[in-house]
Amino acid sequence: MADYDVLIIGAGPAGYVCAIRAAQLGLNTAIVERKYWGGVCLNLGCIPTKALLKNAELARILRERAKEFGIAFDGLRLDYAAAHKRSRRASARLVKGVGFLMKKNGIATYEGSARLLDAHTVAVSGGDGEITLMADNIVIATGARPRGIPGVEIDGERVITYNEAIMADSLPDSVVIVGAGAIGLEFATIWHSYGVEVTIVEMLPHLAPLEDEAISEELERQFKRAGIKFMTSTRLESVELTDGGVKVTVSGESGTFALDAEKVLMAIGVRPNVDGIGLEEIGVRLDRRGFIAIDERMATNVPGVWAIGDVTGKLLLAHVGSAQGIVAAENIAGVETIELDYVMMPRCTYSHPQIASFGYTESGAREKGYDVKVSQFPFQANGKALGLGDYAGFVKLIADAESGRLLGAHMIGPDVTELLPELTLAQMAGLTGHEIARNVHAHPTLSEALMEAAHGLVGHPIHL
Amino acid sequence: MADYDVLIIGAGPAGYVCAIRAAQLGLNTAIVERKYWGGVCLNLGCIPTKALLKNAELARILRERAKEFGIAFDGLRLDYAAAHKRSRRASARLVKGVGFLMKKNGIATYEGSARLLDAHTVAVSGGDGEITLMADNIVIATGARPRGIPGVEIDGERVITYNEAIMADSLPDSVVIVGAGAIGLEFATIWHSYGVEVTIVEMLPHLAPLEDEAISEELERQFKRAGIKFMTSTRLESVELTDGGVKVTVSGESGTFALDAEKVLMAIGVRPNVDGIGLEEIGVRLDRRGFIAIDERMATNVPGVWAIGDVTGKLLLAHVGSAQGIVAAENIAGVETIELDYVMMPRCTYSHPQIASFGYTESGAREKGYDVKVSQFPFQANGKALGLGDYAGFVKLIADAESGRLLGAHMIGPDVTELLPELTLAQMAGLTGHEIARNVHAHPTLSEALMEAAHGLVGHPIHL
Repeated sequence: MADYDVLIIGAGPAGYVCAIRAAQLGLNTAIVERKYWGGVCLNLGCIPTKALLKNAELARILRERAKEFGIAFDGLRLDYAAAHKRSRRASARLVKGVGFLMKKNGIATYEGSARLLDAHTVAVSGGDGEITLMADNIVIATGARPRGIPGVEIDGERVITYNEAIMADSLPDSVVIVGAGAIGLEFATIWHSYGVEVTIVEMLPHLAPLEDEAISEELERQFKRAGIKFMTSTRLESVELTDGGVKVTVSGESGTFALDAEKVLMAIGVRPNVDGIGLEEIGVRLDRRGFIAIDERMATNVPGVWAIGDVTGKLLLAHVGSAQGIVAAENIAGVETIELDYVMMPRCTYSHPQIASFGYTESGAREKGYDVKVSQFPFQANGKALGLGDYAGFVKLIADAESGRLLGAHMIGPDVTELLPELTLAQMAGLTGHEIARNVHAHPTLSEALMEAAHGLVGHPIHL
Repeated sequence: MADYDVLIIGAGPAGYVCAIRAAQLGLNTAIVERKYWGGVCLNLGCIPTKALLKNAELARILRERAKEFGIAFDGLRLDYAAAHKRSRRASARLVKGVGFLMKKNGIATYEGSARLLDAHTVAVSGGDGEITLMADNIVIATGARPRGIPGVEIDGERVITYNEAIMADSLPDSVVIVGAGAIGLEFATIWHSYGVEVTIVEMLPHLAPLEDEAISEELERQFKRAGIKFMTSTRLESVELTDGGVKVTVSGESGTFALDAEKVLMAIGVRPNVDGIGLEEIGVRLDRRGFIAIDERMATNVPGVWAIGDVTGKLLLAHVGSAQGIVAAENIAGVETIELDYVMMPRCTYSHPQIASFGYTESGAREKGYDVKVSQFPFQANGKALGLGDYAGFVKLIADAESGRLLGAHMIGPDVTELLPELTLAQMAGLTGHEIARNVHAHPTLSEALMEAAHGLVGHPIHL
């Protein structure tokens, strides 16, 4: 007889949320974690970076705009170690919360490395030796880790990933950041705000290369204005260790360059944690990129074995992992659930300015054959943004011209990450720009920009 | 023959938005404004206060939490005159924008005082003498002004209203604020953040007396923690001018007290601007509180005469005025429009912590006979709030237990004013907590607290 109805491997935002939902549904649930309760997200990613970004915002204002805000002082000293400490405290508090939630929901917890012995048996080896657990359902939520580049050795000192970047309590003088996705852009924002010399190298033609092109171009304008250096359409050729740090050789259309810096942050993406956990032995199928292949129920090809989160390679976002965890638990319990539409999931980058989007880009929608209607509204016509003194950027809505339904939204500007839920709810419920325009938005809020852009979809904005 | 299809009296957020929508619908439109293009909102209210509140946030962090954020300096000097200047710049920029929008939409503008001569004729007296304009439709959007108390003379020096408070470029040492609505609470936040000694006096039992009681109580806890003094269930008896300022006598359950301060801010509400504009002469009916009575079309009892905004006394909020302006323009043009449900309009107070709400309070819903379901989720379990270092407060959702539909939401905490649109859209579209819980909210955002509270309406939150 099985020890558990469900056993989850990995306690990141996919795994621990799956465990909670499973327990809520009455399933006898266990979870195994090797090291990081709360996963990369709580320990090394989303949470500590958001704390650092709040410090960075203050640092930026004090270093660059104090006079405008009427702030004067002698001898400003910005202590990054204190910022780091604050970020660890936020992380620790939430990690502790995960422990509390496991206990509260009656979930059995095991610390150690897990290995599937068969579709219903897992060996857990930790400090106390190895134990064997049996479960009717096993959910793999082992996540992902930073991807490297052949020939570039991550030494954790001068050639680093987000692991070392987030755990450092001091600042480098200069950094080359390889990769202009969310991680690269967020560290560029943090470091530049504290006066670190940053150069971003991106192989694709734009910063934030997966976003709508208008967003990438606005981000490039704002980064340029802020003095953050970047090189797009530029490929990393090699990294050499030097006396003072690293020599990063890159090549682009205009030739080959050597960039000297104290460190180089490799932020080119992640690869799934699929090795050494017995997947091959029990025949769990991977997709062609090496992530675990799942169906809309989060089931793998092996009955009783499920997979969720970054290891499935769907979107590599914490909230998508959590949503997958809930869907998996509900399917295991056999209760009503939903199918996730990965195209329509919200996506955030907490650079300055922030980026938030969901759905198709304009070009993506056209490629899909939609007759698109586009409406854009700038934050410089938004009173709240002017009050904040932070009004670069805009909201861009994309709708199907025929049905009026939303196909996507692309936003760059102040706190735009908080503006997504109205749009994704509208999309999910089949509402159109008409309803968003008729939804009275409080004044003065940044969200009024959504209402204005929606007016633009069905007629014309008021304030444009 | 009439000069215009529509003539609007008053260019606040109700009037100027009505003018734009009328012009967009092809109506030949004019607008008359006495002094403040953009109204109280842009010139003296919503917009400049939001700029001051951003400065106040920085002042608060630097004065109280610098060490926690790793910020050190010698001799910090906070220049309120610079904050004031920044607030005037934000205001001026938007006021200029209103002028631009009038021109762009081909709206005729007149500066001067307007008086109705009959239902289709308005006399405008300004710097150039008096002219007479005729219009098929006249829209009254004259707004409101601060209400006084018999026996208390507003001298604009020591006994002031928001007019003087917002236009001052220096800080008093101490202020008594009479009235704990949005205006009183926002100035309390601004002033206290800069170190001004503030005492709030409120006649009703709670601060933010019209909000859900749980919100008021949390606000009181946070104000107490911050050291903002307040006296509730306390009535203003008299104000005397003294050598140094004012002596404010108040009485409550525990007796009568005299409060000495440099100034007293009267923030007890507003009264409509209905005098001297010819309403009585042409027979426009007022309601029993003295505001202009309107129907759901924004029509008054006199055919061809309409009224919108604060002068109608519906909610005295800029965005409600703007929405009324749009509805009036659409009714005048005879195109499709909506009926506004004033109970369900969003409401904001930008104190620290912020307050945002819509719909019924819990007790209000029960009084209406609803069988209510309530769900509450705290920001201290929200990762973004922890990252910001600003996690007091919570989200409280109220639904009809039978249908599941939202009856109201009451939020206090970081940036909660930006969280309203998802909820009001859901309410408007007849969606329930089920849809909000299933709407994937990006991590880490403050908006996740909505999703968690919605989970609580239909089952149980994940992170609680």
